[in-house]
Amino acid sequence: MKIVAIVSGGMDSATLVHHYINQRDEVKALGFDYGQRHRKELEFAERLCNELDVPFDVVDLTSISKFIAGQSSQVNPDVEVPDGHYADMTMKITIVPNRNMIMLAVAIGHAISLEYDAVAYGAHAGDHTIYPDCRESFAAAMEGAAKLCDWREIKLLRPFVNDSKADVAKMGNGLGVNFSHTWSCYKGRDNHCGKCGTCVERREAFELSGVDDPTLYEAA
Amino acid sequence: MKIVAIVSGGMDSATLVHHYINQRDEVKALGFDYGQRHRKELEFAERLCNELDVPFDVVDLTSISKFIAGQSSQVNPDVEVPDGHYADMTMKITIVPNRNMIMLAVAIGHAISLEYDAVAYGAHAGDHTIYPDCRESFAAAMEGAAKLCDWREIKLLRPFVNDSKADVAKMGNGLGVNFSHTWSCYKGRDNHCGKCGTCVERREAFELSGVDDPTLYEAA
Repeated sequence: MKIVAIVSGGMDSATLVHHYINQRDEVKALGFDYGQRHRKELEFAERLCNELDVPFDVVDLTSISKFIAGQSSQVNPDVEVPDGHYADMTMKITIVPNRNMIMLAVAIGHAISLEYDAVAYGAHAGDHTIYPDCRESFAAAMEGAAKLCDWREIKLLRPFVNDSKADVAKMGNGLGVNFSHTWSCYKGRDNHCGKCGTCVERREAFELSGVDDPTLYEAA
Repeated sequence: MKIVAIVSGGMDSATLVHHYINQRDEVKALGFDYGQRHRKELEFAERLCNELDVPFDVVDLTSISKFIAGQSSQVNPDVEVPDGHYADMTMKITIVPNRNMIMLAVAIGHAISLEYDAVAYGAHAGDHTIYPDCRESFAAAMEGAAKLCDWREIKLLRPFVNDSKADVAKMGNGLGVNFSHTWSCYKGRDNHCGKCGTCVERREAFELSGVDDPTLYEAA
């Protein structure tokens, strides 16, 4: 199958690309710069794709960030990134309004343009508490739209949507993902902060899965 | 209701904005620059919004055009705009891959960000023969996704999706739309060419509706 994969440079999308390459699918990767505070993730995305000989392009969506920034800590520089557990309700401030639909829409357009078969993204079950657009019900609705947006159907793949992040870590480990070459932290500083929602989630995923955590955290 | 309306500067979106203003809804308009050959339509969009005191912004999506251009005459400058009837199969070359999903996704993100209730677009029944993303089935799928992409539901309005363009012309005329301030032609030159698919459709809509056609066409 020929697949356009949405790659952020985090653990999930790294595992996603390895998964399809391992299945001998043809993968073209897209990263998205929507003015996110943690845009350094895109350098990690690029490196991991290079390591797998997967073509990688960044879609520049910085011009739309003013239309969707709202009160999101990830695109509005005036809103601070919260520390805490990734499932705390305070984490809702990290939501980027309709981010996934926007990325999927562009990726699907690219797949149509390339005459590819599918678009894949790495949403997983742990995301659902906070992020509405990581729910399987959302993905299923988008799958319906992807079947109708062109005269040829585009598939929407979300292989981890019912897995925990620990499951993804275990799977990635089995596929040989080098997790030290992935980035999660929402603060986007030199090292992972260890305290924001995604850092807490990352640490927990390694702990629960028993996979070695190669990450250098600022906070113990 | 508070509505983000997608406005291209054509007859349908002009009628759309008038329709909601006439209903005393609060409207914010978005135009999209995706590198379309006929981007002069955006000047018409801006003027018509100004005339109605509707705030209008252009979303700059020129950076994505290389990812979706493919063989589309409207974004790939090497592909010529075809002349002929708008329902001819040769018009499929004017399709911009997944254009409507991309515009809707950004508009929905903007509506979430503004805490608005709905997004509206002016797809009509005459578009369906050529454009898959003007079908009611596509709009219905996107409506489902718009209900799930945020914790608060966003409505997707497409009031003309079962009307012909002649119906829209009649409705717009009743609402006082100044059609001489709308732009359709895909070629985007000084005047409407009169021969491309959208010009043929425009002329036909005026003829069938009995509404006076104020357009200056290059070709008789």
